[in-house]
Amino acid sequence: MPELRQNVATREWVVIATERAKRPENFVSPEHALTESRPAHVADCPFCPGNEHMTEPPILSIDDGVGWALRIVPNKFPALSSNAGVERSFCGIERRMAGFGFHEVLVESRQHNTTTALLSDLEVVRLLFAFRKRGKALAEDSRLMMVIYFKNHGPSAGTSLAHPHCQLIGVPVVPHTVRARLQDALAYFDEHGSCAFCDMWRQELEAGARVIVAGKHCLSFIPFAALSPFHIWIVPTRHMPLFTQATNAEIEDLAEVLRVTLAKLYHGLRDPDFNFAIRNAPTHEGTSRSFHWYISIVPKVSKMAGFEVGTGMFINPSLPERSAEFLRNVALPSGGAYAIDGPPRRNGSRS
Amino acid sequence: MPELRQNVATREWVVIATERAKRPENFVSPEHALTESRPAHVADCPFCPGNEHMTEPPILSIDDGVGWALRIVPNKFPALSSNAGVERSFCGIERRMAGFGFHEVLVESRQHNTTTALLSDLEVVRLLFAFRKRGKALAEDSRLMMVIYFKNHGPSAGTSLAHPHCQLIGVPVVPHTVRARLQDALAYFDEHGSCAFCDMWRQELEAGARVIVAGKHCLSFIPFAALSPFHIWIVPTRHMPLFTQATNAEIEDLAEVLRVTLAKLYHGLRDPDFNFAIRNAPTHEGTSRSFHWYISIVPKVSKMAGFEVGTGMFINPSLPERSAEFLRNVALPSGGAYAIDGPPRRNGSRS
Repeated sequence: MPELRQNVATREWVVIATERAKRPENFVSPEHALTESRPAHVADCPFCPGNEHMTEPPILSIDDGVGWALRIVPNKFPALSSNAGVERSFCGIERRMAGFGFHEVLVESRQHNTTTALLSDLEVVRLLFAFRKRGKALAEDSRLMMVIYFKNHGPSAGTSLAHPHCQLIGVPVVPHTVRARLQDALAYFDEHGSCAFCDMWRQELEAGARVIVAGKHCLSFIPFAALSPFHIWIVPTRHMPLFTQATNAEIEDLAEVLRVTLAKLYHGLRDPDFNFAIRNAPTHEGTSRSFHWYISIVPKVSKMAGFEVGTGMFINPSLPERSAEFLRNVALPSGGAYAIDGPPRRNGSRS
Repeated sequence: MPELRQNVATREWVVIATERAKRPENFVSPEHALTESRPAHVADCPFCPGNEHMTEPPILSIDDGVGWALRIVPNKFPALSSNAGVERSFCGIERRMAGFGFHEVLVESRQHNTTTALLSDLEVVRLLFAFRKRGKALAEDSRLMMVIYFKNHGPSAGTSLAHPHCQLIGVPVVPHTVRARLQDALAYFDEHGSCAFCDMWRQELEAGARVIVAGKHCLSFIPFAALSPFHIWIVPTRHMPLFTQATNAEIEDLAEVLRVTLAKLYHGLRDPDFNFAIRNAPTHEGTSRSFHWYISIVPKVSKMAGFEVGTGMFINPSLPERSAEFLRNVALPSGGAYAIDGPPRRNGSRS
């Protein structure tokens, strides 16, 4: 029998279409060139070493002794402009404002043929530290309402450049969906006296069936009401509304959990295209007791269709418990950047 | 300068990324086999005549003297089941209910190599009458909260079968996004004393720049704050919350406007993949003065990326006014099923 499930934090209903559920193996990407099979350096790639003149001067650059190891540069074709104003003009149905904001690119590595899943823990820590540093600086600008951190991996996730990179965008409005989530989280808090996201990670850890990696300070799992196959959340275990509030220890742990989770997708599903985003609160909601930041990873292994367009509600043709078990069982190549032999508690299976 | 725009009805902000805006011509689908270039009959297609045994017995079948001209059959792999219950079980974060509902397929034509854009007006009227008839019957079932009507055209829109078909789904919950839209429409009504959708079509008709086809009883346009390139709304000009409330005259007019709009996409963008959905109110909201049904058409000519995943907010790399002008200027093949020579007022250009 099919089942409807509701996410307690977002209140989104999803149809778990068991009648046409596919096995996890069905979502393995068809034969395609893996990231690691590409050349390590590409002469005309704007993010490869030697082509630094093809981007604007870096806003932040980290050197590892050999050369730059990470760079943040302004996006060459920004969605929003730091030169625009923030005046709103409402005239009947035409509500507009100038497109003020920041749009930056974080180049994750010198190496062309790698991706977050294949980096070392140290490199992912560096990436997240750079996100936090830049996010803190942007939050100083009172014209911005929130900062979004995200990555597009692969063409169907919207990437035009193969060189490993993430992006940051600072926006001057609270997006409608974010506002709705804040309201729903507040309604949950009002009813239960606790944060929905805190309740969620605790109960997911307790249940175990949907856990992928249990870190010291965060939990990676497929939510009970996952919207699509292998839709993953990584939730910090300490309550905090903003990503920039994470401590060094929390970020170091998050880096490992994020890398292991992405490596399991990479090796288990053959380098699928995906998006990940840090779902953050608006910068002025730093003291909220009901909203909690988290990372959402969405592999592009199924299509949105007319039903989703007509309702905003998803049909998920996979069973979250079975997908999580599949990922837990993905063995990662050992040695070097791949070592993940954590303590037994890192295995979500508790039976 | 980029611009932020807000839809007054849905309150969604969108970034109109003028800095990297593409011209309408850039969204023309690359060379691919057009629908009309496929064979007219396919031996193993479950929706082609002669293969009626491959589907369940029809719920509705319309004969045109030659044979069946349209059929509604139960979906062979339904997302929801009419045999399930509607009991909710809430246990901590695990909120679930049995997957009760209806999932039906409407086969639009005997002919394999056609699509709504290529049908005659009479055939589209028949399709919408069938939707309405079946929608009314489903609404009698008090276990259902709403009925969704939609079409997936092409692989990237989620179709697995090429034979022209639409779908109906009856769901036992009000999807979260629908609830949010009802609330926002009510807030608009509270502030303005009028329906946001009524205000929108009137002002869009008056402005003219974003109009595609102006019918007698509905308006086809690219909304001021369109979320993606060639995102189209068709709004009935009479206030009504539910699609099933449309009169025969309204449906006949809608059929022509829908067909002409889809034909302009077909000929202008070379048969792009797309979804359309009737965005409907829950069945028990039939007397709402603030919510208004409409058709949303979403051509799959750009990708959702991490920014959208992280915020629910879209970046639209096209200018609605320019896209609408492009579609208005698409000439349709004359004669037979393609004739659309309406009165001059059907042309949205008013300058």
